[in-house]
Amino acid sequence: MGVVTDVHIVGAGMTRFAKTDRTLRDLAQEAVIQALGDAGLQPADVPAAYVGNAAAGLVTGQEMIRGQVMLRGIGIEGIPIFNIENACASASSAAHLGWQAVANGVHDVVLCVGAEKLTHADKAVGMKAIGTAVDVEMMAELAAEMGTAEPAGERSFFMDIYADMARDYMATSGATVEHFASIVVKNQHNGARNARAQYGAELSVADVLASRTVVEPLTLLMCSPISDGAAAIVLASTAAMERLGRRGPRVRASVVVSGNIHDKSDPLAGSAGRAAQMAYNISGLGPDDLDCVEVHDASAPAEMIVYEQIALAPPGGAPDLVDSGRTLLDGDLPVNTSGGLLSKGHPIGATGIAQLCEATWQLRGEAGERQVEGARVALTQNGGGWLEGDSAAMAVHILSAD
Amino acid sequence: MGVVTDVHIVGAGMTRFAKTDRTLRDLAQEAVIQALGDAGLQPADVPAAYVGNAAAGLVTGQEMIRGQVMLRGIGIEGIPIFNIENACASASSAAHLGWQAVANGVHDVVLCVGAEKLTHADKAVGMKAIGTAVDVEMMAELAAEMGTAEPAGERSFFMDIYADMARDYMATSGATVEHFASIVVKNQHNGARNARAQYGAELSVADVLASRTVVEPLTLLMCSPISDGAAAIVLASTAAMERLGRRGPRVRASVVVSGNIHDKSDPLAGSAGRAAQMAYNISGLGPDDLDCVEVHDASAPAEMIVYEQIALAPPGGAPDLVDSGRTLLDGDLPVNTSGGLLSKGHPIGATGIAQLCEATWQLRGEAGERQVEGARVALTQNGGGWLEGDSAAMAVHILSAD
Repeated sequence: MGVVTDVHIVGAGMTRFAKTDRTLRDLAQEAVIQALGDAGLQPADVPAAYVGNAAAGLVTGQEMIRGQVMLRGIGIEGIPIFNIENACASASSAAHLGWQAVANGVHDVVLCVGAEKLTHADKAVGMKAIGTAVDVEMMAELAAEMGTAEPAGERSFFMDIYADMARDYMATSGATVEHFASIVVKNQHNGARNARAQYGAELSVADVLASRTVVEPLTLLMCSPISDGAAAIVLASTAAMERLGRRGPRVRASVVVSGNIHDKSDPLAGSAGRAAQMAYNISGLGPDDLDCVEVHDASAPAEMIVYEQIALAPPGGAPDLVDSGRTLLDGDLPVNTSGGLLSKGHPIGATGIAQLCEATWQLRGEAGERQVEGARVALTQNGGGWLEGDSAAMAVHILSAD
Repeated sequence: MGVVTDVHIVGAGMTRFAKTDRTLRDLAQEAVIQALGDAGLQPADVPAAYVGNAAAGLVTGQEMIRGQVMLRGIGIEGIPIFNIENACASASSAAHLGWQAVANGVHDVVLCVGAEKLTHADKAVGMKAIGTAVDVEMMAELAAEMGTAEPAGERSFFMDIYADMARDYMATSGATVEHFASIVVKNQHNGARNARAQYGAELSVADVLASRTVVEPLTLLMCSPISDGAAAIVLASTAAMERLGRRGPRVRASVVVSGNIHDKSDPLAGSAGRAAQMAYNISGLGPDDLDCVEVHDASAPAEMIVYEQIALAPPGGAPDLVDSGRTLLDGDLPVNTSGGLLSKGHPIGATGIAQLCEATWQLRGEAGERQVEGARVALTQNGGGWLEGDSAAMAVHILSAD
């Protein structure tokens, strides 16, 4: 690796995640203006932008030049703008490419944005868009074989995948629906402390289990919601950060992989495991060093499975980790302090950068009611798409306070 | 700029451009297998892929993980795959990001692919997809104001833009429809010497003028066709090229900008002019050094306008340059030796890398019947999308034989 400078997140901005009538451009610009202000930059100072979005083509009809359209009229002119798509990992893929540019001295600062609008008058439109995070030809063949219609409508078929994973996981680990429910209780508790979260409430395990069943064993509260929103970060070299008179966490590792490995015999061959292991190796930091973690809890069981994949727990050890209370906000390894996808919301192409915003605020001590005392090291994990039994794209970032 | 190594194109592959029934994946894999074979690489050797595509979301329904789907089953496993979208400049944007990664030592080789399928049983689908290379909300407002329907159907509304540009350009430069027609005659002559070109014929100026009018003054033969196809290149560091025992042209400059500059008073403020000037500055090469050039002739007048923007001719000088015959295949500054978009075809997300393939073959002396004797330096120019009176994305590359 030819890294020539450390990279820091010197600005973070994020809309509240919600179902809204606002346009994608309006959401993106709110996040961008916040992030630039936080970094002490004017729009005209931005030399390059990396923009993540996953679904605009199908939801709003905007393809091809989504970033240019989102950033239009804000005073960002003439610069290279790259539109990056990797399903639910679009934003962290954009952040990774922006990080590459700064780490290697191509630019001394870059703007990375993720934005998504999933709500649509016709609910099936958003669901169908999410359903393109797979090989659509394979899915059409599969649907034809099964004699079923196209998977679109009342729920994302991703919840069928997660339900399958959950049943397998329960059978091998001893995890129960009560474990899944307690993940939701934790994340909703955290989200209730985040003004930018879509939801957030003090719930009981019984409340979560009593919500309607989406796909056995998942209840509605165990599934991340449909959300609109945007998040942005400004990445800067150490020299640029000093010039700006800012401070911000250091990116210790930025890793993107894809999950299409046919040999599944290595437990780390799963994309989250591989990406985390690479990030631990690159950073010289390990699971024991983490003070807070944001993981891709698109469903509650996914959070537990990821605990094992990224080595927060040994194989089969996630139920014990949940029981221990260590991943609660006041535990020693708090996970999804932001509320996670379950409570904060999941505007898919924005999620990866929203995770990096939360890590930034935690490491700067600006997370308010949900602040993890003395947080020094954070990890974020963000998966996207589904292909041949694993995520099509997987991103892991590790940040440290300095 | 923190460039740590020169970057070379050590493999090039391309399908024939055509209207076909083949899938996007099939097209992409043909180009990739050719390019990897050309580079002496196995699929398992590829550490990262940058994939350009513009329209699959709307034409085939595949969004979000297009590159993963295109590359599935070919033996490329587990690597980072980035899906890059910048309308007709998607492929050169992907090539630029791949170049950044190699130039800065992130990877020693990368695969860059552009692929597009525009034909669809319903012709309006492809046209509507092309129509998303603008701000779709602005266009909808404009259509409502004008009391017209959405711009989709028989022709791309880009031809209306080009027709406007052509009329303005004729008024200021003295260019005539015969000039535009002679661009088509030249490019069709070149395309007839390219087995990968969609079209190619020996035509007369009268033939071109006699084809049906699309939008005054553009006749059908002055407009690039609807095409399917794919192109791929392998980029390598100097050390990797030596290890592979390959040779290939050196990337002397890779520049991407966007066109949204509000102050249009500087003639070079146009995106093609700015990008070319940056590329000339970076490479230390100028228009006089160029042995062959590929430009974005989505319409015949665009080729002439670009002559002036990239300084092949002084302002207003393109008609004289055309009259001189210098840009013919046997002239001293041949342009669009491949046939260009007009004759070779324009599968929009593939075009930028197809241009780099042609430059590679010319600089390696492998262009067969259309070889430019002793070609040492080549330039490619590729524009994408339309926003506020200029291209939303513009890429210029300069390559040298060694």
